[in-house]
Amino acid sequence: MTYSPQTTNDNLSFILNKPHEISFAQQPKPTLGSPHDVIVKINYTGICGSDVHYWDRGAIGSFILKEPMVLGHESAGTIVVIGSAVKNLQIGDRVALEPGTPCRRCEFCLAGHYNLCLDMRFAATPPYGGTLTGFYVAPEDFCYKLPSHVTQQEGALIEPLAVAVHVVKQAEIRPGQSVVIMGAGPVGLLCCAVAKAYGASKIISVDIQSDRVKFAIDYAATHAFLPDSSSPEANAARLCKEANLSNGADAVIDASGAESSIQTSLHTVSRGGTFVQAGMGKSNINFPIMALCLKEVTAKGSFRYSSGDYKLAIELVATGKVNVKKLITNVVSFKEAEQAFKDVKEGKGIKYLIAGPNEGKLLAD
Amino acid sequence: MTYSPQTTNDNLSFILNKPHEISFAQQPKPTLGSPHDVIVKINYTGICGSDVHYWDRGAIGSFILKEPMVLGHESAGTIVVIGSAVKNLQIGDRVALEPGTPCRRCEFCLAGHYNLCLDMRFAATPPYGGTLTGFYVAPEDFCYKLPSHVTQQEGALIEPLAVAVHVVKQAEIRPGQSVVIMGAGPVGLLCCAVAKAYGASKIISVDIQSDRVKFAIDYAATHAFLPDSSSPEANAARLCKEANLSNGADAVIDASGAESSIQTSLHTVSRGGTFVQAGMGKSNINFPIMALCLKEVTAKGSFRYSSGDYKLAIELVATGKVNVKKLITNVVSFKEAEQAFKDVKEGKGIKYLIAGPNEGKLLAD
Amino acid sequence: MTYSPQTTNDNLSFILNKPHEISFAQQPKPTLGSPHDVIVKINYTGICGSDVHYWDRGAIGSFILKEPMVLGHESAGTIVVIGSAVKNLQIGDRVALEPGTPCRRCEFCLAGHYNLCLDMRFAATPPYGGTLTGFYVAPEDFCYKLPSHVTQQEGALIEPLAVAVHVVKQAEIRPGQSVVIMGAGPVGLLCCAVAKAYGASKIISVDIQSDRVKFAIDYAATHAFLPDSSSPEANAARLCKEANLSNGADAVIDASGAESSIQTSLHTVSRGGTFVQAGMGKSNINFPIMALCLKEVTAKGSFRYSSGDYKLAIELVATGKVNVKKLITNVVSFKEAEQAFKDVKEGKGIKYLIAGPNEGKLLAD
Amino acid sequence: MTYSPQTTNDNLSFILNKPHEISFAQQPKPTLGSPHDVIVKINYTGICGSDVHYWDRGAIGSFILKEPMVLGHESAGTIVVIGSAVKNLQIGDRVALEPGTPCRRCEFCLAGHYNLCLDMRFAATPPYGGTLTGFYVAPEDFCYKLPSHVTQQEGALIEPLAVAVHVVKQAEIRPGQSVVIMGAGPVGLLCCAVAKAYGASKIISVDIQSDRVKFAIDYAATHAFLPDSSSPEANAARLCKEANLSNGADAVIDASGAESSIQTSLHTVSRGGTFVQAGMGKSNINFPIMALCLKEVTAKGSFRYSSGDYKLAIELVATGKVNVKKLITNVVSFKEAEQAFKDVKEGKGIKYLIAGPNEGKLLAD
Repeated sequence: MTYSPQTTNDNLSFILNKPHEISFAQQPKPTLGSPHDVIVKINYTGICGSDVHYWDRGAIGSFILKEPMVLGHESAGTIVVIGSAVKNLQIGDRVALEPGTPCRRCEFCLAGHYNLCLDMRFAATPPYGGTLTGFYVAPEDFCYKLPSHVTQQEGALIEPLAVAVHVVKQAEIRPGQSVVIMGAGPVGLLCCAVAKAYGASKIISVDIQSDRVKFAIDYAATHAFLPDSSSPEANAARLCKEANLSNGADAVIDASGAESSIQTSLHTVSRGGTFVQAGMGKSNINFPIMALCLKEVTAKGSFRYSSGDYKLAIELVATGKVNVKKLITNVVSFKEAEQAFKDVKEGKGIKYLIAGPNEGKLLAD
Repeated sequence: MTYSPQTTNDNLSFILNKPHEISFAQQPKPTLGSPHDVIVKINYTGICGSDVHYWDRGAIGSFILKEPMVLGHESAGTIVVIGSAVKNLQIGDRVALEPGTPCRRCEFCLAGHYNLCLDMRFAATPPYGGTLTGFYVAPEDFCYKLPSHVTQQEGALIEPLAVAVHVVKQAEIRPGQSVVIMGAGPVGLLCCAVAKAYGASKIISVDIQSDRVKFAIDYAATHAFLPDSSSPEANAARLCKEANLSNGADAVIDASGAESSIQTSLHTVSRGGTFVQAGMGKSNINFPIMALCLKEVTAKGSFRYSSGDYKLAIELVATGKVNVKKLITNVVSFKEAEQAFKDVKEGKGIKYLIAGPNEGKLLAD
Repeated sequence: MTYSPQTTNDNLSFILNKPHEISFAQQPKPTLGSPHDVIVKINYTGICGSDVHYWDRGAIGSFILKEPMVLGHESAGTIVVIGSAVKNLQIGDRVALEPGTPCRRCEFCLAGHYNLCLDMRFAATPPYGGTLTGFYVAPEDFCYKLPSHVTQQEGALIEPLAVAVHVVKQAEIRPGQSVVIMGAGPVGLLCCAVAKAYGASKIISVDIQSDRVKFAIDYAATHAFLPDSSSPEANAARLCKEANLSNGADAVIDASGAESSIQTSLHTVSRGGTFVQAGMGKSNINFPIMALCLKEVTAKGSFRYSSGDYKLAIELVATGKVNVKKLITNVVSFKEAEQAFKDVKEGKGIKYLIAGPNEGKLLAD
Repeated sequence: MTYSPQTTNDNLSFILNKPHEISFAQQPKPTLGSPHDVIVKINYTGICGSDVHYWDRGAIGSFILKEPMVLGHESAGTIVVIGSAVKNLQIGDRVALEPGTPCRRCEFCLAGHYNLCLDMRFAATPPYGGTLTGFYVAPEDFCYKLPSHVTQQEGALIEPLAVAVHVVKQAEIRPGQSVVIMGAGPVGLLCCAVAKAYGASKIISVDIQSDRVKFAIDYAATHAFLPDSSSPEANAARLCKEANLSNGADAVIDASGAESSIQTSLHTVSRGGTFVQAGMGKSNINFPIMALCLKEVTAKGSFRYSSGDYKLAIELVATGKVNVKKLITNVVSFKEAEQAFKDVKEGKGIKYLIAGPNEGKLLAD
C-alpha cells in the first residue's frame, strides 16, 4: 500500500459536528502545500482537555466551532510522503507532530516566539482541523524524529510534555530550587517531572484529590499537599511549614486554573519568586495583586510551546529523565474514540490514547 | 554651630502619635552606629502618599503604628558628621538620602535585591522613625552626593524618582517601545519622564482627571487617554486605537492602584509584553488572569528601589533628562507641615516639600 | 513606464568580475519567487567596507568570489510589484531594504536569531548578487516602509544603522552607563549615536585619527580619546583617567577590528562589564584572556542584525534621535560607482551613496 | 577544652615564608571582629592549585607575597564561638567555610556580585592569611551548615564545587544541551558533575592525559576527547564529529587555562553559544576573535563564586547529585602538609586534604 490522494477510503476522521455530536467520516486526503511539507500517517493521538472542552461546549474563549471540525492534536505518526525540499526526514520515519504551524513572518515569529504568532494555524482549533484522522500534512520542521527506542505511543505524549517543558522554562527553574505545582492532572504531573529534570530540589504537588497527589509522589514530586477550605493565606502558610520553605517557594506553577489555587500560589511564592499561569480556567478571578507588588513577584503566562520545546521533550523521554508511559491510562481503537472522550470528561484516569484509523497498516513504514 | 549630640534643642521632629494627631517635639539627636555612618542635617523632605496614609489611617498593610513615630522619608540634606571609616563623603557634602537600610546579610541582600531584605529598616515605617526631623543617621553608601548644580529641593525628589527608575527597570523599557502609564500622580508622571529617558517612542499617560493627563503631556508623555465608564476591554481597545498600537502596548505600568486601571492594563499590553504593578491599592482585585496566560504577559511587582536606582535618578536630574522641579507644587516651613499633609490628602497639587527644622542654619555647610 | 520583466534594458548592474575588475551590464530583471515577495526599484545604495573588500580582494573569510557578482547591499528603493499574499505594502511605497533573507526554518531562525541562519541568502555575499542594480526582489517582511519625512538617501543608511543598533543591543547599554567605542568610521559613529539614544551618559569615541574623533564629538560622543603607542594597559589607564571612569567603562564596543584596540578594550571595561566585537579584522589576535576571566567580563560578537533592528533604526531616524544625513559625504550617479569605490578605499569621507540606475525615472512611484 | 584566645598553644599554622620555604608556627588565635562573626575550628582543608602556585612562585598576577602568609582556603570546620548577633548557627555546628569576605558596601556587593568586590578579603591571598591553621574567624553568613550525613571531608570539597557551580551558572547550561569541558583536573571534573546536575545531555571531557578523561567518563562525562597536535580548527572538527554535534556545542568551558584549549573552544562552540573561561593561565594568548564575532558567541569569565553558589554546592552533595568523595586522593595529617603540596605540584592524584591541627580534639563539637 502506498499513499495515493486519489484513493479516499483510508482517511477516516473523527469529526465534531456540534457539541456532543460526533461523526466518523472519510475526508479528502491531504496533499503537500509546499516542498518543505511532509504527510504523516497518524499512529496515536492523545485526548487533551481542550478536545474534550470543544466536544462538550463547542468553544474555548474566542475560538468557536462554526462548522464540523476534526478533533485531536496530540499525535505521533509515520512519514509517508516528503516534499522535494525536505532535508532531514525520510519516508518511514517515526515522528512526533507539533500541531501548530506559525506564519514565520510576523514580528512574533521573527523574534522567536512563534507560539504568539498572529496567524497561527493550530490543529483542532477552529477553523483548522485536527489529527484524529488518517493522514495529516505538516512542514518538515514541525515533525520531530523519534529515536528508535521511543515508541509511537510515547510519541503521542510529546505534545503535553512540550507544554510542561514550556511552563518550566517560563518558571526559570534552576537546580536547588523549590517548586510548587498546583494541580496533578497530566500537565501538572508532567511539570513535576520536568521540574525534576531541571534540578529542582523540592517539588510540591498540590491537588484536592488525595489519590492524585499520591500518584504525583510516586511519579516525580518530593512533597504532596492537600489544601483545605481555609483561606489562601492559611493554606499557603501550612504548605510552607510542611515543606519547610521558610521564605516561600522559589517558583509556583498553576496547572489547575482554579481560582483558589492561584490565590494560594501568590501567597506561597517567595519574595522575588516566579509564578506561572499554565492552567485554563475563568477569564477573571479574585487575585492578590498587592502580594505580587510588595514581594516583586514575576507572574507569567505560559501558552503552548515554542522554539526548542519539542526537541527537549523528546530528549527527556529518550534519556529516561521523564517517563511518559506511566501516564497512559488506556489505548483504544479509533472506533472507540467517543467513549474515550466520555471517560476523560468523567475524570477517569490520566491520559487516553486513540489509535489512528490506519495504525497497524503497512504504509511504507 | 557644630553638631553636638549633647545639645538637644535643635532636633525638632514631626511626630505622628496616632491617626490625625501630630506633635512637634525635640528628640534625642542621633549618634553614629557604625564607623561607616554619617549624620545628615535634613534640608528638605517631600510628602509621600504613604506618609499621608499613616497620618490618616495609622497603618499600611501589616505595618501598624503602635507608638509615636516621626514621619517622612523623601529627603535631602547636608553631611554634618562622618564616621571613621567613611571614604567618599565629607562634612558639608549635599546628599540625597536613601531612607532604607538593609541588613546586608540575608539571601536577598547578598543576591543584590536589598529592597526585598528580610530585615529592612525603612524610615517612617513602623517601628522606624522618619526624616521629618533635624538630623538623621545613615550609612555612607546610602547617602548620594548631589552635583553642585542640583539643588537640595531637587534632591528631595530623588526618592520618588528612584521609585520610578525602579519601576521602569522592572518594565524593561527599551528604545522604540510603547508604554502606557496608568495614573498621573507623582510616581506616574516620573515614570513617564524615566520611560522617555529610556527611549520609549510612545508614552501614553492615563488618568481619570483631564488636568492631570494634560500636565503629563506637557511634562513627558506623548499621548493622553481618559478612560470612560465602559468595560476594561473597551477602554483598552479605544486606547490602542487612539495611540495606533495595533498589537497593544509593549509595556503597561500601573501607578494608580485602581482596580479598573489594572484590568485595562492587562487588555492593553501586547502578546509577550510586560505589566508592572507599581501603585498601592486594594489587596485583592478582580483580575483578567486568562489574558495574562494566553498572551504570555510578564507581570511584575515593583517595590521601592534597589542597587543603582538612586545613582541613576541623580544622573537623570543632573543631565537634565528628567525635570523634577516642575513637580514641586509648594515648599513650606517645618511648622507648616501638618497643613501640607492636609493639602496633599485633599489632592491639591503634585509634590509638597517641607523644609527641615534647621534648613538655613549654618552647620558646617 | 511600468515594470515588465520582458524589457531588459533597464536593469543595469554593477558587477564585480574579479578583484579590481568591474563591468556595467544589463541583467535579467527579477521575478517574484513567492506570493509574499515584492520587487523594489533601487533608489540609493551606500558603499560598505565589505563591498570594497570584495572589490579589492575578492573574498571575505570563507566567502570567496567564484563568479561575477553584483555588489551592494545598503539600499533603499520603491515598490514596483507586489505578490498576491503581500499585506502591508503597496506599489509606490518607499522602503529600506534588509538585504539578507533567512531560511525561516532552521533552529536559529525559529529561535529568533535569523542573523545566525544556517542557510542565509545575503546580498553581495557569494554566491548571491547585491543591490547595485535596477530592481531587486525581496520578501515583504524584509522591506520596511519609510515615513514620509524620511528620504530615500536616509533610507540607504538604515542598513549600517541597523548594524549599530544590533551592536548596542548586544552591549546591553542602559541609561546612565559609560560606553567606549573603538573606531570612528561609519559603524563606530552610528554606535555612538545609538548609545546616546539608549541613554548612555558617557560615550567615549576612540580613534587614531584626530579629525575622526573630532567629528564624533560633534556628532554624538561626549569624550574623545586618541591612543598613543604605549601599552594597551597604559592607554586604558589614561582613557579611564581622562573620562573619569574610576572602575572602568560599563561597556566597550570595538568597531575597528584593530588588535591594539581590542586589547585596550579588555583593560578598559569594568569588572562585570560587557565587551562587544563588532569590527572585522584579523582572524586571530593576541588577547588578554585573564582580564576577561578575572573581571568576569562578558564578551560578545555582533553579526549583522536581527529581529526588530531595522524597525528601531527607522524609528531612531524618524524621531530625530539619530541623524544619518550628517554621515553622507557624497552622492554619485550609478555610472560613477567605480570611482566612489576607489575614494572609499582611500579612506576619503564617511559614507558614499550611489544612485540606482533608474533613480529619477517614474515607475509607479 | 573550650576556646580561649589566651591559650596560644593550639593554633598551629602552615606558613609560607617565601617560595618553597614553609614553617609551622603557633599564631595568635582569632577573636570576633563583629557580633555577626563566628570562630571555626578547622577540621579539613583541601589543597588548591592557587595554594601550590603561591608556594611555588610566591605570586599570582598582581597578588604578591610580601610577608609570611598562612596558606589554605578550602576548608570545613566546627563552630566553637558565636557572636552575640549570630542567628542561625550554634556552637558545635559543622560548616563549610566560604573563604572570602566582601565589603558589603561597594557597588558590586550591593548589586549582588560580591565576588567582584573592590575590597574583598580572601583567605590565602596576600595580604590575608588562610585556613591551614587551628581556628579561623568568619561572618556567620559565610559559614554554611553541613547536613548531618555530609562529612567534614566532603565539606572541604564544597569550595572547589562552588567554583564549578559558578562556572556552570555563567555558562547558563540548561537541560538537553551539549557542553564541552576543557581540562579534567578537579575543577573540570566538578564542572562535568555540575553540568550533569543542570541536565546537560552531552558532556564532553577534554584532556591531553587519557587517564584523566577516563576518570571523567567514570565520574560524570558522557564523552571523552583527546586532542592531538593538529590545529584548533581540526581538533574542533574532530570533536564535533565524534560527539555528533552538527552545529557545535551549546557551551564550552575552559577549565585548563591552556592556550590551545581556548582556541579549540572557540571553534567548537555553536553559533550563538557560550564560552566560559574558568582556568588560570597566561595573561595574553592568541585568540580566534573573528570566530567569536561571526558566530555571535558569548564569552564570559568566571571568578570564584557568589550569591547562592555555596548553598547549591552543599545541596548537590547532600542530594547525591554530585559525588565529591571520589575526588579525594589522600587525607594527610597537618604535619604532612608540605609533602602533600609537593605531591600536588607533581600532578599526583586529584584532591589532597590536610587535617586541621586540632582535628580529632573535642572542642565543643
